[in-house]
Amino acid sequence: MYDTQVTLVGHVATQIDYKETVNGPSARFRFAVTPRYFDRRKDVWTDGTTSFYTVWARRTLAVNLAGSVSVGEPLVVHGRLRVRDDPPDGEGNRRVSAEIDATAIGHDLNRGTAAFRRVVRTDHPLMDTQKAAVG
Amino acid sequence: MYDTQVTLVGHVATQIDYKETVNGPSARFRFAVTPRYFDRRKDVWTDGTTSFYTVWARRTLAVNLAGSVSVGEPLVVHGRLRVRDDPPDGEGNRRVSAEIDATAIGHDLNRGTAAFRRVVRTDHPLMDTQKAAVG
Amino acid sequence: MYDTQVTLVGHVATQIDYKETVNGPSARFRFAVTPRYFDRRKDVWTDGTTSFYTVWARRTLAVNLAGSVSVGEPLVVHGRLRVRDDPPDGEGNRRVSAEIDATAIGHDLNRGTAAFRRVVRTDHPLMDTQKAAVG
Amino acid sequence: MYDTQVTLVGHVATQIDYKETVNGPSARFRFAVTPRYFDRRKDVWTDGTTSFYTVWARRTLAVNLAGSVSVGEPLVVHGRLRVRDDPPDGEGNRRVSAEIDATAIGHDLNRGTAAFRRVVRTDHPLMDTQKAAVG
Repeated sequence: MYDTQVTLVGHVATQIDYKETVNGPSARFRFAVTPRYFDRRKDVWTDGTTSFYTVWARRTLAVNLAGSVSVGEPLVVHGRLRVRDDPPDGEGNRRVSAEIDATAIGHDLNRGTAAFRRVVRTDHPLMDTQKAAVG
Repeated sequence: MYDTQVTLVGHVATQIDYKETVNGPSARFRFAVTPRYFDRRKDVWTDGTTSFYTVWARRTLAVNLAGSVSVGEPLVVHGRLRVRDDPPDGEGNRRVSAEIDATAIGHDLNRGTAAFRRVVRTDHPLMDTQKAAVG
Repeated sequence: MYDTQVTLVGHVATQIDYKETVNGPSARFRFAVTPRYFDRRKDVWTDGTTSFYTVWARRTLAVNLAGSVSVGEPLVVHGRLRVRDDPPDGEGNRRVSAEIDATAIGHDLNRGTAAFRRVVRTDHPLMDTQKAAVG
Repeated sequence: MYDTQVTLVGHVATQIDYKETVNGPSARFRFAVTPRYFDRRKDVWTDGTTSFYTVWARRTLAVNLAGSVSVGEPLVVHGRLRVRDDPPDGEGNRRVSAEIDATAIGHDLNRGTAAFRRVVRTDHPLMDTQKAAVG
């Protein structure tokens, strides 16, 4: 309740940073969203200023993301938005970032085609295997 | 302004109905969304009632959709919502339907992996070719 | 998770139907949303087709809604969307409706001003009182 | 197209900063959103970390906002999200902020009642008057 949901349509700006954690697989990347608007005075479509977000994925979504997505690819990202305001570091710099805890992610089919392959989850064997491999 | 945007996470319930029209490629399909909620009394996750939507895609999105998506596949669908209330037919039946004019569609990476291939658009040659082929 | 959230900006189309139920206060009304879009050919803003929704409010939101909102007033409605498809009635008519289970509702300040008065909730005394009065 | 729309439910954290500009009335304020989630381990509802946003309103919405809303009041805010990343200032501090260009704003009727009064717009006379008064 009162979660702030948001859907972003944009491009992957950094490599997927994938990690095994004690809470299971986790992945993150920076995501660039550039709005397009119709400039009525010039009668043309124009790019607005790009916004950057940090997107987090967990568990199976993190595993499949790491196995499917590369820098520059176009995605639809749906999830919960939060704005983190970290305390100043030693030099007094504040760090504010807009982060998405992703609920679902998919390649944007406006920009290309995708061959999908279902991953069967039998109590997350993939994750268990990967944890074992890492451990 | 005042568009009603919505994001659906669910499954494709019918085959993609793809057509060439005078306005370019168009595709539609029925889409099933089943909410999951945590039942605090029983302490388990439970399925809610499924909602069905008609999703429309146009132009390049329609072409790539038809080339990428099959019945039963999990998708993220983002677009504009409208509720159509068609006049009664000869037997007095009203037809109300919830429709999405899709802005972006992608396979839900919670459920599997996807191999993405970018389609380069050089003034929509694909569409021109297809129109020519149909004509 | 996987709830379909939506935000509607539009006008109240029917009186608020307020009821006391065994689960507490409940209110519903029909809500009309008319998209506006810029017609590039004619160079003017135009109204699109109106969509109608049934909005449900519960508990304190239902009570305050009934005490604050009249037919024709402009609202922002945020909540969970579902599409109900009721079985055919005796004459074979199917009834499909788009419903919003409201999370938050407020008067749209684009259209006027609002004087807000906070209602203090001490274990929902207002509802208890009203139930007592009804009982 | 590809605008990032978002709906926030929270509280006004600062006074409304209202200004007349050459482009018409403009108002801004800081807005605090605190998610609530159900902690299954402790079996209680808990507050998450608060996110802060800068909300901008223009034209009639700015005028009515300034005449209706005070610090601490609960609002529903719907609009376009962008993340601004300003260049470092003289001391090397980067400033990142999450901003909402509001489409609609209303008092959250979960928290109280509101008496709404429609403002008739006849070519924005209110704004013209105010501009004249300021000029």
